[in-house]
Amino acid sequence: MPALTPYVQLEQEFRRLHAFRGALAVLRWDAAVTMPRASADVRGDQLAALETECHALLSSPRLTRLIERAEASRQGLADWQQANLREMRRERDHAIATPPSLVARLARETARAEALWLDARERNDFSVLAPQLDEVVKLTRNRAAMLGQHLGLDPYDALADEFTPGLRSREITELFATLSRRLPTLVNEALDRQLEGPAITVEGRFTPARQRALCVEVMRAVGFPFDRGRFDEAGRAFTEGVPGDIRVTTRFDPRDPFSGLLGALHETGQALYDLGLPKEWRDQPVGQDRGMALEESQSLLLEMIIGRSREFVAYLRPLLLKHYGVDGPGWSEENLYRRLNTVVRGPIRMDADELTYQAHIIVRYELEQRLLSGELPVRNLPEAWNELMDRRLGICPASDNDGCLQDIHWAQGSFGYFPSYGIGAVVAAQLWEGLREEQVGVSQEIIRGEFGSVIGWLRENVHALGAKMEVPDLVKHATGKPLHAGPYLRYLERKYLLDG
Amino acid sequence: MPALTPYVQLEQEFRRLHAFRGALAVLRWDAAVTMPRASADVRGDQLAALETECHALLSSPRLTRLIERAEASRQGLADWQQANLREMRRERDHAIATPPSLVARLARETARAEALWLDARERNDFSVLAPQLDEVVKLTRNRAAMLGQHLGLDPYDALADEFTPGLRSREITELFATLSRRLPTLVNEALDRQLEGPAITVEGRFTPARQRALCVEVMRAVGFPFDRGRFDEAGRAFTEGVPGDIRVTTRFDPRDPFSGLLGALHETGQALYDLGLPKEWRDQPVGQDRGMALEESQSLLLEMIIGRSREFVAYLRPLLLKHYGVDGPGWSEENLYRRLNTVVRGPIRMDADELTYQAHIIVRYELEQRLLSGELPVRNLPEAWNELMDRRLGICPASDNDGCLQDIHWAQGSFGYFPSYGIGAVVAAQLWEGLREEQVGVSQEIIRGEFGSVIGWLRENVHALGAKMEVPDLVKHATGKPLHAGPYLRYLERKYLLDG
Repeated sequence: MPALTPYVQLEQEFRRLHAFRGALAVLRWDAAVTMPRASADVRGDQLAALETECHALLSSPRLTRLIERAEASRQGLADWQQANLREMRRERDHAIATPPSLVARLARETARAEALWLDARERNDFSVLAPQLDEVVKLTRNRAAMLGQHLGLDPYDALADEFTPGLRSREITELFATLSRRLPTLVNEALDRQLEGPAITVEGRFTPARQRALCVEVMRAVGFPFDRGRFDEAGRAFTEGVPGDIRVTTRFDPRDPFSGLLGALHETGQALYDLGLPKEWRDQPVGQDRGMALEESQSLLLEMIIGRSREFVAYLRPLLLKHYGVDGPGWSEENLYRRLNTVVRGPIRMDADELTYQAHIIVRYELEQRLLSGELPVRNLPEAWNELMDRRLGICPASDNDGCLQDIHWAQGSFGYFPSYGIGAVVAAQLWEGLREEQVGVSQEIIRGEFGSVIGWLRENVHALGAKMEVPDLVKHATGKPLHAGPYLRYLERKYLLDG
Repeated sequence: MPALTPYVQLEQEFRRLHAFRGALAVLRWDAAVTMPRASADVRGDQLAALETECHALLSSPRLTRLIERAEASRQGLADWQQANLREMRRERDHAIATPPSLVARLARETARAEALWLDARERNDFSVLAPQLDEVVKLTRNRAAMLGQHLGLDPYDALADEFTPGLRSREITELFATLSRRLPTLVNEALDRQLEGPAITVEGRFTPARQRALCVEVMRAVGFPFDRGRFDEAGRAFTEGVPGDIRVTTRFDPRDPFSGLLGALHETGQALYDLGLPKEWRDQPVGQDRGMALEESQSLLLEMIIGRSREFVAYLRPLLLKHYGVDGPGWSEENLYRRLNTVVRGPIRMDADELTYQAHIIVRYELEQRLLSGELPVRNLPEAWNELMDRRLGICPASDNDGCLQDIHWAQGSFGYFPSYGIGAVVAAQLWEGLREEQVGVSQEIIRGEFGSVIGWLRENVHALGAKMEVPDLVKHATGKPLHAGPYLRYLERKYLLDG
């Protein structure tokens, strides 16, 4: 048997890593959906053992040697292989940059912070969490410095790179600045306009069984493959799994006919992305999704842009009547459209509509940078939060729970994550504009419940690229233009000022 | 930090192994119960990667060195630790005895044989499978020779030791000879007696939902912990998981009010065994179950001995009426008892009653030894099978599907497995006799649906011992007598000749 090249040996190692991660995905899904409730201790040991194994694989000296040898003979590789090698190094660099002692300490301190976050939420009092969050911020600052040094990036960019590879704060800041110049007035104009025709309430019995049947019918139409995926109810909506076995959940609120479906659509967007990743690279780094902002763009495109469009409402209305057995003025197309697109200045990000959502993200982006730089002491976070929410959205949260205690991300040590949500929305709109230029019949198709052209275009121009390019290059490749805020603002203006 | 002793380092390694095996259990359960049907390819990769990891852990030179060093200072260990070290070596010896090339070849050839077994079943023609089974037998013969040499055992004993540690063919042969002397006449006598009062049929609507509700009520009464376990419908009845997260399935046949419940009881017996294993040794080899024969004994004790007793029928009857909404002469205690204990000479092991079951096992035990020794060529198996079934049970199977094609075990390379079923029944009866001598109120308790004394006795005398002793020692420890066929034959005679 001839000796395998370093690159081929690397593919074997990453194939193992992929199998372990697939196993981790099943264990996590099971923990959220099917696991007996008292079995979390056992599951914790299993997850930790597998995660340790993944980390050991990525940080082994042998892997580093193989990467260096493969890079030395890179010119003999095809372009997908070169991109794969680049992603292998990225994974290895991220894994190795933080020393195991700091990884262990962060795991311990964030676990404590998560528990205290729950306590603080219960008492509606940020000061319960503040000292522990301060600890997490300090450790994360160290981690960001080491990671940045290792990757040749600014500390904050090094953190953000973990969630959306290739996205830098220079571009994020510029995009958010453009949005901040237009969105506040746009919100005002939309709210004024909304007064002319407010939505009325809808009534009916929205049992989980009915909601589920509705979701399944819509997911089938969109193209979710039920022989390669599952759809379950869980405490929250999420997507888990690998492209050959993808699992979507949502949460059914019996008083709300829409939230379960919209959650399912959001997750179906991500699932279809995962399913469309290049088959021949499935078990390699270059065959994975291109990070959080891209996943979010696929979710928002389906849930927000398509799922709340007039065309989709026309398709959806008969299904609502059929599954919920309802009728009456609330269920007119016009009213359903208004209900799905009502703008409200509220304090909670998770409840925010499309138009006010970015303000929530921009506030977090600014604050997490100031926390990490040390400019903003953790104990002063509530005042800074409220002041900034007032400035960006004209809202002053009434309490910590409505303010800086609403998200768990920072307690978990996830800094650099929030911008991905906002950028995801911008990417979604730009892709949508590109898609509609090329697929001119899309509106009529959606009304008929046909999604083949939409998903086909996304598959060809986004999904099939996997992790071959950085996010900005991928957007340019798909739309012919660099990532910019224009399409997003045009989309919002057309929808909220010109009525779709 | 002071250096850890070799023994303590071993415990750490086996803790990792336990976590991987727990993950494997979840992946297997998921594959059988919740996995999308087209995702088997992905799951195969995940299982293979984890199994390879387990094998690598057990066969690493470092583990061997640690075991040797720990054995050299064994006298400093407590008795549980010494037993744990013995089990560590057993696992390591079994893992290392077969060279990886042979493991890989067996995996390939048994996979082919399984597929051909399905084909052969479809055509009801053993000759479709024969050449491939011959291949599997030859490879297994090699494996048995190597394993035997490594463990200092006869080849067949080395295979059987994988399923029930400590059980040797000398004892199996002797036990089966004792059974063969009495059972054929006992079957005749029971069949004669049965003619005097045959069971009449029962009628009703046994929907899966009703069967499930019945099973859950009975499982709760027996002590199945639903917060640490699950109960699901699947294509077959099985138990999967680890003591902190144990999962039982059964199969509901809407025409049969009993088979789903009996399957659930069978698996609950095993689940309660796993749950009763010593908590402080859960993640170590000595804290695992003591092999197939013991597991089967716990299943049969609950399903066969208790679950088909007059006392249990008295407890069960009101539940049947409640859940199935039935009544009428078929549902009298007397008739239910008769239906649950009808003796039939049939060709199929899986359908066999308690009394004829051993003949099926003994036939397989004799044949697999002759196949492995080479005395019986694989191509002659059908004739040998039919001849022996006739001799042992007075049955001549009408076709290969009713004969030597009915079980998948040999195609999977599982030789030495079948005796565990038969020995399990013998062990169950001996434990039951010991239990009833000490817990005199058991009959009345079962009638009231109380199982605390039964499970408590088993927990103390069997479950809590884990893998601390070999099977024969464990039986002697629990009952004060060596493993022997007396209690089993007494139990059958009392039940089938004296009516309970």
